[in-house]
Amino acid sequence: MARVLYSRLAVIGCGLIGGSVVRAARAAGVVDEIAVAEINPAYRDRLAELDIADLLTGDAREAVSGADLVMLATFPSALEDVAREIGPHLKPGATITDVGSVKGPVGEALSAAAPPGVHVIPGHPIAGTELSGPDAGFAALFRDRWTILCPRPSADPGYGEAVSRLTAFWEALGARVEAMDEKHHDQVLAVTSHLPHLIAYTIVGTAAHLEEVSQGEVMKYSAGGFRDFTRIAASDPTMWRDVFLLNKDAVLEILGQFTEDLQGMSKAIRWGDGQALEDLFTRTREIRRGVIAAGQESAEPNFGRDKGRTS
Amino acid sequence: MARVLYSRLAVIGCGLIGGSVVRAARAAGVVDEIAVAEINPAYRDRLAELDIADLLTGDAREAVSGADLVMLATFPSALEDVAREIGPHLKPGATITDVGSVKGPVGEALSAAAPPGVHVIPGHPIAGTELSGPDAGFAALFRDRWTILCPRPSADPGYGEAVSRLTAFWEALGARVEAMDEKHHDQVLAVTSHLPHLIAYTIVGTAAHLEEVSQGEVMKYSAGGFRDFTRIAASDPTMWRDVFLLNKDAVLEILGQFTEDLQGMSKAIRWGDGQALEDLFTRTREIRRGVIAAGQESAEPNFGRDKGRTS
Repeated sequence: MARVLYSRLAVIGCGLIGGSVVRAARAAGVVDEIAVAEINPAYRDRLAELDIADLLTGDAREAVSGADLVMLATFPSALEDVAREIGPHLKPGATITDVGSVKGPVGEALSAAAPPGVHVIPGHPIAGTELSGPDAGFAALFRDRWTILCPRPSADPGYGEAVSRLTAFWEALGARVEAMDEKHHDQVLAVTSHLPHLIAYTIVGTAAHLEEVSQGEVMKYSAGGFRDFTRIAASDPTMWRDVFLLNKDAVLEILGQFTEDLQGMSKAIRWGDGQALEDLFTRTREIRRGVIAAGQESAEPNFGRDKGRTS
Repeated sequence: MARVLYSRLAVIGCGLIGGSVVRAARAAGVVDEIAVAEINPAYRDRLAELDIADLLTGDAREAVSGADLVMLATFPSALEDVAREIGPHLKPGATITDVGSVKGPVGEALSAAAPPGVHVIPGHPIAGTELSGPDAGFAALFRDRWTILCPRPSADPGYGEAVSRLTAFWEALGARVEAMDEKHHDQVLAVTSHLPHLIAYTIVGTAAHLEEVSQGEVMKYSAGGFRDFTRIAASDPTMWRDVFLLNKDAVLEILGQFTEDLQGMSKAIRWGDGQALEDLFTRTREIRRGVIAAGQESAEPNFGRDKGRTS
């Protein structure tokens, strides 16, 4: 039987990630009680039907009262205000963390809001789907996925233990946990997540406004590769707006490098430099093998479903 | 029981697509005999072990002799030479077709090589995976996928019947069939397939050469969205080199539009224009719904596998 790590977990914001944390923590038996604060009344009604929380409220202050672990799973842009609101209500010795895709501004915002004796440990589970809302979450979302924690310098003698406990919590939810510097996290995610989403959003937007090809044709013949982009570009609009604004510097830097490389490809096509194209395409194939070796993907073709298909 | 549509099918080139056609045609019972020509001796050895052809040869002329349907499934760049080589050996009344992603140059090349009385019908099954070689093919690849045929102007009284028969053949393999003009096909595929592949190859290449983020980190944390791009960018390098060179004009045109749109995104991020970002991201979500409605994707989240995950 799993060890109870926190008597009371409070999750603020219960969409895809918050809702998955609630379900996974319950399934793993690592918390006694779960309080959920959700500001959207329609979401709250649905969460009541789903009956996944012991306490369901619209008031974040009420949810965090008495909680040992407070997890902010709101839109990134709301995080600072919510932290300021709940700060005075946090229990001494509690841990406050978050789940956002950008870590740069989070540590400072949480530290400014949390009273002394509260442990601030920004976090980011690298997991998700293109779906959002109360029904999108599921307990297995974090299984075999990385969660990155960004511990902060702290003189508090209990801080190390708090980090160990939060690590154990994520591991109980099935995740692998790594510690990372906030700034480095944002550079890594700009490459592995933010730029791919930006590109997917852009290409789907481009394809929607063409003269020669109708939107209906684009959808109908999307199996050739475009379909994968439409899935990524269906991710939560508000969340991703926040990500790009908050991680502006790292995103613009990697976007600049991508644009240069794309110009190189354009030039190779224009001048018929087949060797350059084939050389690059052969190298990128090797990187795929590395992703498979890193355990991030199965090497098996996906016969049963169409997700593995391209053309 | 399925009607036999062709006594003898000859497939020239037996990788992912050719090998899938062979398996699917056999499974559907729409051909009596299958001849396969494969120029790569290692592939040929493996095909002999797999025992999926009635005749297996390195000589395309031998394979097409007596065939009622000849399907070229070689690299696109080899197609013209192969057509010239087999032309004199084609049976009067036979149909010759292909499976390539670019149709512009194909019709002329095949028509120039085929003797009178042979029906030239370029084709393109919009289906595939990132895998290649004799083991990559599978019978279900074309199921519920579109195959586009590009019939040519013909004075031959048997041509219409030949198109109907080839349509029935693809339908027996599970595909939905549509007719399209060669040039329009290339414009549509430039958007739905060629540009997505070009972008995936580019971003994977960009991510492999960064100063701040190691290649190991990119692979380790690829679950955030990048992983989908590595799968697309693992597609056959030679095949895709050929596609970009052969469909140069349409690809450069759509690439130009994408680049303009990407600059717009860059500007919105730089100037903190969250409304512009959120508006676009909301519109692209609608397009996803259209793809689902067009039957190109399931609306269900993909809990069992990680292909549906992004972050």
